[in-house]
Amino acid sequence: MVVGTVALDSVETPFGKVKDALGGTASYFAFAAHHYTDINIVGVVGQDFPAEHLDLFKRHNIGTDGLQTLPGKTFRWAGQYDFDLNTAHTLDTQLNVLSEFHPTLPEEYRNSDLVFLGNIDPHLQMDVLKQVSSPRLTVLDSMNFWIDREREALTGVMKMVDIVLLNEAEVRQYAQTYNLLAAARTILELGPKALIIKKGEYGALMFSGDNEIFITPAFPLESVKDPTGAGDSFAGGFLGYLASSGDFTAKGIRKAMIHGSVIASFTVEDFSVNRLVSATREEIDERYRQFQRLTFFEHSCKHADDCQRLQFSWTAN
Amino acid sequence: MVVGTVALDSVETPFGKVKDALGGTASYFAFAAHHYTDINIVGVVGQDFPAEHLDLFKRHNIGTDGLQTLPGKTFRWAGQYDFDLNTAHTLDTQLNVLSEFHPTLPEEYRNSDLVFLGNIDPHLQMDVLKQVSSPRLTVLDSMNFWIDREREALTGVMKMVDIVLLNEAEVRQYAQTYNLLAAARTILELGPKALIIKKGEYGALMFSGDNEIFITPAFPLESVKDPTGAGDSFAGGFLGYLASSGDFTAKGIRKAMIHGSVIASFTVEDFSVNRLVSATREEIDERYRQFQRLTFFEHSCKHADDCQRLQFSWTAN
Repeated sequence: MVVGTVALDSVETPFGKVKDALGGTASYFAFAAHHYTDINIVGVVGQDFPAEHLDLFKRHNIGTDGLQTLPGKTFRWAGQYDFDLNTAHTLDTQLNVLSEFHPTLPEEYRNSDLVFLGNIDPHLQMDVLKQVSSPRLTVLDSMNFWIDREREALTGVMKMVDIVLLNEAEVRQYAQTYNLLAAARTILELGPKALIIKKGEYGALMFSGDNEIFITPAFPLESVKDPTGAGDSFAGGFLGYLASSGDFTAKGIRKAMIHGSVIASFTVEDFSVNRLVSATREEIDERYRQFQRLTFFEHSCKHADDCQRLQFSWTAN
Repeated sequence: MVVGTVALDSVETPFGKVKDALGGTASYFAFAAHHYTDINIVGVVGQDFPAEHLDLFKRHNIGTDGLQTLPGKTFRWAGQYDFDLNTAHTLDTQLNVLSEFHPTLPEEYRNSDLVFLGNIDPHLQMDVLKQVSSPRLTVLDSMNFWIDREREALTGVMKMVDIVLLNEAEVRQYAQTYNLLAAARTILELGPKALIIKKGEYGALMFSGDNEIFITPAFPLESVKDPTGAGDSFAGGFLGYLASSGDFTAKGIRKAMIHGSVIASFTVEDFSVNRLVSATREEIDERYRQFQRLTFFEHSCKHADDCQRLQFSWTAN
């Protein structure tokens, strides 16, 4: 289950532009995760939300019973990227129905095993968490806005979840230190079992409570059109894979990080969820194999201790 | 053998400062490589070059027969880093004797197996290349200044060497495109068998002629004091390891990249070559093992083709 925004995005990059295209955390997450598992959306749209988008969810077996329709307009975001594609320049944000959003989980969602709390008001994230009975794994995302204005509420949710997922700048901002190792320690001390740091074109890093660090690069791409949604797709691939494998060992979590990176690499190849939707299982598997080659140098478990630590069971909850 | 600057650096970072400390490409490269192999320096210093630095080279068995002493002052660089430590702000550059530098190789250096052409005027790099009889592996570094002003001469040397080593911005500048894959293709088309792209705190990337890509992260560090010399140390660890292993297969080259990253991680932990000098073989081996854990997820050669390609011999020259 994912709770998060469903948006109409207007995005301009040096490689093209779209207007009112399907976007938002829940959309990217769902289309990423649906390659691996069943997935339900909790979110809100306005009465102007195009039926074709709803239809796209349904045709891909994405549950929309938790997607409320409220009077008014759908949340809209407009942004622009320069050539480096690393920084989104927000041109316009219209909350619209999002400001009225009070997530209520359909009965059958309350037993969700894996829960992703997308970047929304931490009070709402907490509301959702309280409605779920006994999830196996909970993951939280957030952003500079909430770190700034709702630090206490955000900290409260961070203490409750298994994994915190933030980008580099957010981790530094929250921990108020530049050094990522020191920052990771600050966040892990709150209670989560792992912190995943998203680094955009430089990949992602995971710090776990037993002092393990895992690094995955981003998949090198010939053509990147629009980085919007890469982080949410990463989360969707990560949790989707975990749902399908059921392997919560350290090694299983690492493999899930690679799947997150694989899925995110499709997202950025086109605007909106286009490429994410068109990616096939074969393409996903092929990129996963290419990832093995990308970082391979000498990974046999020569040293008993190395293997030992990797085989420690990483148990959520 | 390394040809490059020997400098007196004055560096200030948020974590301290040094004045007229031993620096320059050849110094960092040599202290990196000496952990693995015999190494000779070709460079120039002024009459003010402290005897203690010369002594430090000699005590570590670094050959200085090719280090000329000319009338005048030693090359000096002064720089400053902010908290992010990614960008050096040059405060002052005094070429001094460097402007009179004409590298002449001592007879016994002309048979050098592995040659690193540090970042100096490409005309001088070419001079050196012509004095070496039949090296097994030649590697070139350069910088924005030469790409800008001596593009033709630089291109001439790039066509002659086996490996080109540049940072991200330089690769983009030379190839005049933002996309690194496209940029890599432009450079590989000139002739070198591989391009290594340095990404600072994000590690390094290697593109080789057979379309293989290898990525190594930078080693995550608790405390980084001064990033000066990281790239030259990477080159020294890379070539030093290759000299000692003699393994020029794709896998050997990949392992050498990891050793480059390991050695560079020591350099940045202190100012000047201090930490590079004090690192022990045990510490180096331990970080190499930690690197295996950093990127491990599932690297067995399940797919025959993966292993096949990695075992292809990568032959220099």
